[in-house]
Amino acid sequence: MQPSPPDLDEDRDLSFAELRDAWPVLSIEERVEGFRLLPRAVAEEFFTTLSAVDQAELLMSLPAAERRGWIRVLEPDDAADLIQALPDEFRDLGLGWLDEATRKEVIALLAYAEDDAGGLMSPRYARLRPDMRVDDAIAYLRRQARERLETIYYVYVLDSEQRLLGVVSFRELFAAPADKTVRDVMRQSLVTAREDMDQEELSQLFREHGLMAVPVVDGEGRMKGIVTIDDIVDVVEEEATEDIQKMGGTQALDAPYLQVGLASMVRKRVVWLLVLFMGEMMTATAMGYFEEELAGAIVLALFIPLIISSGGNSGSQATTLVIRAMALDELRLRDWWRVIRREVLSGVALGGILGTVGAARIVIWQKLFGTYGEHYLGVAFTLAASIASVVLWGTMVGSMLPFILRQWRFDPASASAPLVATLVDVSGIIIYFSVAQTVLGGTLL
Amino acid sequence: MQPSPPDLDEDRDLSFAELRDAWPVLSIEERVEGFRLLPRAVAEEFFTTLSAVDQAELLMSLPAAERRGWIRVLEPDDAADLIQALPDEFRDLGLGWLDEATRKEVIALLAYAEDDAGGLMSPRYARLRPDMRVDDAIAYLRRQARERLETIYYVYVLDSEQRLLGVVSFRELFAAPADKTVRDVMRQSLVTAREDMDQEELSQLFREHGLMAVPVVDGEGRMKGIVTIDDIVDVVEEEATEDIQKMGGTQALDAPYLQVGLASMVRKRVVWLLVLFMGEMMTATAMGYFEEELAGAIVLALFIPLIISSGGNSGSQATTLVIRAMALDELRLRDWWRVIRREVLSGVALGGILGTVGAARIVIWQKLFGTYGEHYLGVAFTLAASIASVVLWGTMVGSMLPFILRQWRFDPASASAPLVATLVDVSGIIIYFSVAQTVLGGTLL
Repeated sequence: MQPSPPDLDEDRDLSFAELRDAWPVLSIEERVEGFRLLPRAVAEEFFTTLSAVDQAELLMSLPAAERRGWIRVLEPDDAADLIQALPDEFRDLGLGWLDEATRKEVIALLAYAEDDAGGLMSPRYARLRPDMRVDDAIAYLRRQARERLETIYYVYVLDSEQRLLGVVSFRELFAAPADKTVRDVMRQSLVTAREDMDQEELSQLFREHGLMAVPVVDGEGRMKGIVTIDDIVDVVEEEATEDIQKMGGTQALDAPYLQVGLASMVRKRVVWLLVLFMGEMMTATAMGYFEEELAGAIVLALFIPLIISSGGNSGSQATTLVIRAMALDELRLRDWWRVIRREVLSGVALGGILGTVGAARIVIWQKLFGTYGEHYLGVAFTLAASIASVVLWGTMVGSMLPFILRQWRFDPASASAPLVATLVDVSGIIIYFSVAQTVLGGTLL
Repeated sequence: MQPSPPDLDEDRDLSFAELRDAWPVLSIEERVEGFRLLPRAVAEEFFTTLSAVDQAELLMSLPAAERRGWIRVLEPDDAADLIQALPDEFRDLGLGWLDEATRKEVIALLAYAEDDAGGLMSPRYARLRPDMRVDDAIAYLRRQARERLETIYYVYVLDSEQRLLGVVSFRELFAAPADKTVRDVMRQSLVTAREDMDQEELSQLFREHGLMAVPVVDGEGRMKGIVTIDDIVDVVEEEATEDIQKMGGTQALDAPYLQVGLASMVRKRVVWLLVLFMGEMMTATAMGYFEEELAGAIVLALFIPLIISSGGNSGSQATTLVIRAMALDELRLRDWWRVIRREVLSGVALGGILGTVGAARIVIWQKLFGTYGEHYLGVAFTLAASIASVVLWGTMVGSMLPFILRQWRFDPASASAPLVATLVDVSGIIIYFSVAQTVLGGTLL
């Protein structure tokens, strides 16, 4: 049943899609071999679509003489990522593979954190002076386009000190009368990003303004580079992956599933599992306090999993919805009040429905099999009231925990379904037995 | 503590950011009022960044005479989305707001499903004939750019029957010698999408090939439009949101959290809660079979929540990692064997660690407080063995469920943390009591 790697022995060209599909299951030797079977043009495209980690690994496995050729296929921002992915001792060597001009650009980029606007930007943007005629500007851009530009979608208008004055889209420039100046057609109100803007904030900027590129400027308004929307697609996907992994109760893997070593995989999972396990131990302590009630009415024990899981499930729904809405900027901290109001109403409705179903089950089973003895109505009421309370409680905890985490400057996505379930389990047991004592005290208890 | 809406009464211009921030908390009347306070150019940009639903709502609340002006700000693909968001009885009216040429384009687009390549594409792409000289091509594009084009990043080369022959990036065209023909500089091997390609598949195409735009062609190779990467950012975000919501155990909301009505919110959550609740009821049935053992050794009851939650948490981790890896195309169906091998090893390691901690807790509590009586070693061993087995089982169920769902053509993301926890809870109870019978039979039981 195991997939067989593609046949690399044949003396034939491999296609982009064939190698792409097989890539995750190939050893590094097989990757090198497959890569060398691609026609040069295809291989160049293939190389640019690899992750920086894969590029670095591949490059280190190719003969030293070939490395230069491949790294020069990359834009400076991607080359910088690749160099950051090399083992520390090879970084200087890696810089040596670049031509002089690119090396300077890459060294400048390496000063920025990978997740900042500075780390995502390319220094190769199209630029014009404000007093050029549209005609001359187009001819000048044509010369710039012969060097490598990241995009010519937007053209930036700079003064002699590199300060950003305005922007004109290529389309607008193209459509403008030939004898106007760049200043006449440029837009002056424009969205910019600071060098140290976090990539998550940056992707919100793109979303809110529907942009294709954003210029990055320093504190003095001098233009440093541009971030283009194709990099933002990766950011959006990366951030969603991180959130999803945290919401499932692991640390972010930071690499494709199959490429994470087993030891590292266990390490990234065991920390949260242990924290949750320690928290969940308190359920045993909580139940210890009610051992007498349990001994008196074993029937109460039967419903413990049902009750605590109802709280956990409703809490998981609430926390998931709130975390995602926060990530999409649909909810801010100050919205907590609107959220709790909605969640209390939802919790009452959901708890009421589940509680009714739970009570019905006891009554029906009693009529059919006589399972629950003479006090079945008391048991049914206890169950219904407990489920309703626990679901409401789960909904409230699940919806508020992300706000509390964010207020304390933790990542709201850490309010994972398992964490909420653990918090609700202990309180669910206390709620359940307290309700039971009240309802069944004097009869069953 | 409730946020106050911005002061709309003042006779002053509102800024883009102010209205954007306040938008979710405003009533429709306040939205209209705020929107009218924006300067015209800002309002146009603001309008284009709204969701189709918000655009439709806003338009319906504006005077009939103003609607034309606003809908004409949109590209045909966005106008089609807006018209789809109008109440059914207003669609024809909506089409009437468009100018003749755009109306034709929009009607053609309305024939496609919203989530298909056809529904995302714009018919306004830049086109050339293969035998044009580069110089003439640039001049011809300059005339095309005066009409509205979605992008001039890529220019498509078509024959007289609209069949797609090749593509040339604007940059390449610009950099090419003036006297070559378009055919000389165009690339013929290019990635295309079918009209009915699903948006998720489409976004993978963009990711795999690192593209800025993809041409959409029909069965005969005739070009119908282009999908640009800015639409893909929305798709990526939308698909992640859907997956996250399903993974948290609700149906996808399909709208921002605060904009979903309470009744609809409860409906989208109660279905899965009920399904899980019904499933979880089997825990009561399962425990019913072990009532005798429970009555004999109440101490066993104390650890039930700890044991089943350990299985649920490890299962939640596994299912989350696998679902996300599948969504990113890192895992295909045929990789199930590689995954189960890894997960069994991880499960053994994680279960071993948690089991040891659990047993240690019993031994330490016994030494400190004498909580667990003379058979504490048996109880400790029972707990350790049960936890280890349940964690391993949770990991296996969590990692395989997404594969099973995908095999049966369900969405793998439905293998939510709560669903896995519910499946593992019932079996966890059976595992626990079976281990207890074996280990403690003849002593405590």
